[in-house]
Amino acid sequence: MTGFHLGPFAGATGFSDAVGLDEADPIFDFRERYHVADPELIYLDGNSLGRLPRAVLPRLEELVVDQWGDGLIRSWNETWWDLQIAIGERLAPLIGALPGEVIISDSTSVNLYKLAMAALGVSESRRKIVTDDANFPTDLYVLRGVAGALGGYVEMVRTEGSTSPMASLEAALDEEAALLSLSSTAFKSGYTYDIAGVTALAHRAGASVLWDLSHSAGVMPIDLEASGADMAVGCTYKYLNGGPGAPAFLYVRRDLQGSLASPIPGWWGHAEPFAFDLDYQPAEGIRSFHSGTMPILSLAAMEAGFTDVAEAGIDRIRAKSVSLTEFFIRQWEEHLAPLGFALASPLDPERRGSHVSLSHPEAWPLDRALIEIGMVIPDFRAPDNLRFGLAPLYNTHLEVHTAVQRIRAIAMTGAHAPFAGEKLTVT
Amino acid sequence: MTGFHLGPFAGATGFSDAVGLDEADPIFDFRERYHVADPELIYLDGNSLGRLPRAVLPRLEELVVDQWGDGLIRSWNETWWDLQIAIGERLAPLIGALPGEVIISDSTSVNLYKLAMAALGVSESRRKIVTDDANFPTDLYVLRGVAGALGGYVEMVRTEGSTSPMASLEAALDEEAALLSLSSTAFKSGYTYDIAGVTALAHRAGASVLWDLSHSAGVMPIDLEASGADMAVGCTYKYLNGGPGAPAFLYVRRDLQGSLASPIPGWWGHAEPFAFDLDYQPAEGIRSFHSGTMPILSLAAMEAGFTDVAEAGIDRIRAKSVSLTEFFIRQWEEHLAPLGFALASPLDPERRGSHVSLSHPEAWPLDRALIEIGMVIPDFRAPDNLRFGLAPLYNTHLEVHTAVQRIRAIAMTGAHAPFAGEKLTVT
Repeated sequence: MTGFHLGPFAGATGFSDAVGLDEADPIFDFRERYHVADPELIYLDGNSLGRLPRAVLPRLEELVVDQWGDGLIRSWNETWWDLQIAIGERLAPLIGALPGEVIISDSTSVNLYKLAMAALGVSESRRKIVTDDANFPTDLYVLRGVAGALGGYVEMVRTEGSTSPMASLEAALDEEAALLSLSSTAFKSGYTYDIAGVTALAHRAGASVLWDLSHSAGVMPIDLEASGADMAVGCTYKYLNGGPGAPAFLYVRRDLQGSLASPIPGWWGHAEPFAFDLDYQPAEGIRSFHSGTMPILSLAAMEAGFTDVAEAGIDRIRAKSVSLTEFFIRQWEEHLAPLGFALASPLDPERRGSHVSLSHPEAWPLDRALIEIGMVIPDFRAPDNLRFGLAPLYNTHLEVHTAVQRIRAIAMTGAHAPFAGEKLTVT
Repeated sequence: MTGFHLGPFAGATGFSDAVGLDEADPIFDFRERYHVADPELIYLDGNSLGRLPRAVLPRLEELVVDQWGDGLIRSWNETWWDLQIAIGERLAPLIGALPGEVIISDSTSVNLYKLAMAALGVSESRRKIVTDDANFPTDLYVLRGVAGALGGYVEMVRTEGSTSPMASLEAALDEEAALLSLSSTAFKSGYTYDIAGVTALAHRAGASVLWDLSHSAGVMPIDLEASGADMAVGCTYKYLNGGPGAPAFLYVRRDLQGSLASPIPGWWGHAEPFAFDLDYQPAEGIRSFHSGTMPILSLAAMEAGFTDVAEAGIDRIRAKSVSLTEFFIRQWEEHLAPLGFALASPLDPERRGSHVSLSHPEAWPLDRALIEIGMVIPDFRAPDNLRFGLAPLYNTHLEVHTAVQRIRAIAMTGAHAPFAGEKLTVT
């Protein structure tokens, strides 16, 4: 929109803080590894789809031309057959898993289904799956599907907005509970559980735990091993920058692998896949959780993002993430709270992931105006939630400062009013 | 290998037939649409991984740079959200499905699981799934998994090599049978069922039918609608040239869509996905069979292959497929049968798909020698099966003629002997 001032806003409070924080940022240069076509566009939706690593296109060209085009079926032997194992091994240290505990496989939903079916399947008398209302809705649907198939039931604890989620979970974890399944970081509020604490709570009650790490992986330190977590799944296209709809991951603690059986056994998970036996004989270890053939182009494209996370280091990433969200909240308090934006994320950085949600009665037209006029891309979640994902590998404090000023300008001038009638869509 | 004569073999019988058949081939020029780095390499494994369409790389560059890189999350709205529906609609006419009956989704194994669970789930008293031993082993594993989860059982009919498979199936389709699930074309022998005839047989017995079309789609005329088939799945990376591990497809006849429920419900299959409801409300129609997010790069790459099949036309493709396999068998009879190669595929072209299998006691070293010395890529299936996939969009009769002569030369000279000790792998 002609005339909309995009900044920088050197006169607004916080500007020199932002500049100083960026200058002191030890991982500032990782931004160079990402495709940024228009530096005026402030992308605060890396919690939904991470930016494109520059290394992806050359990797895909190699894969398409050299491996598919020239190598043809031989490339299955030479590089593709174990790619989901190899890339899983790259991911493992980023979530505190040991070698042989992680594979890339299917989608998050399908992986959640496989592991929940396996876990409820081995539980003898306990029939309850415990979850909460801050979980991603698909997870709730899948868990109910699993319970329905195996004669169990789901208890959905109300923890959204609660001041004592641990107490609510504890009450539900009774002698009926077979499995606790939660999103480690909530998709709406960004509330993040103490994985070790919640896992211990479930284990004391005799239940196993299945974590959905989608909004945590690649941006928070996660130590599955130390926490004693039983199972985990997650997507790779958010902070891991794996690409649109990139395949998901699946973790099963090593000592459980022999006792849990995938409900969708496939030849990729067979002990001798090339024997083409009429009978299924599961492979040892995590490999038995494979189902069908993996989408190799999408699989290969995800490696670049994992490399960046590993090289930047998860502790430096988390430190910057906390710095970005803290700075965002300080700026919100001063510039946006007076305009009717409420903070819908935890104030305590210990309990907060890497996105900050603001609620506002006109969140939907504000979202649309921010994208179309303000050149800021947040994320809208019905009914009144604006999510701002802060991705430490490429977002800067100055972007946060500028974005808040653009939000302020739109809200103050009512520039979002014309968008009020637009149909809800996915952004 | 120095000194191995790659041909052409103008002196061998059949040479002028091959040249003449290629000259008369109305879809000969489609070969130009495919990446052929080395014209001496004869690729007879398109039944396992189809060749690279030249249109794929430009499409991926657009997707990666323009849509992911520049468009970022906005591309979900603009092009990606319905891509698996749109590409499913492109596929539908190639398998005789109506609009709204096909989606691209997950892998073949996961789709088979979803539909078999749905079908057995609605069957009230019948608990048996009927299949056969010519089916792809993963299908057997998955069907047994489904039966196990829902208190049913699988009867695996022996039809492999049988002269009366229909009679064997008929006997198994008793009042216990809920579901019949078969590969329409067998992965080993290439035997292809009469889809309409078998479907009618099952329906008369009160069972529903779930077809795996992996080795038929894109190369045989399939009329799901006319045949009355209930459900189907299949992969897209064989004759459809969708790329390595490209996502699979799923078909549910329209009138059944309301009564069958996916066991893995996800927000993509929700009636109002952006409401993020805590309760699942399935979308109307085929959309409810979606689970999680699709791998967009692999999804987008598959379109080029579908376009080629549609433009060449399935009837011309089938006519050429029959011509290629008939010619291969005539050449086998004259040149390879005397050397101990036995035909392991049906002689009747009506009952044969687009690959021809030869069995030979030394099939494994022969396979390795053909690839390494002969520059012919077939496919090996344990214990003694050489599969030759004839892909009408890019294989020629002259390639068949040349390949047979190269096979003959290797078998006659014993050039394959040094490969006898090699470990079995995936080719």
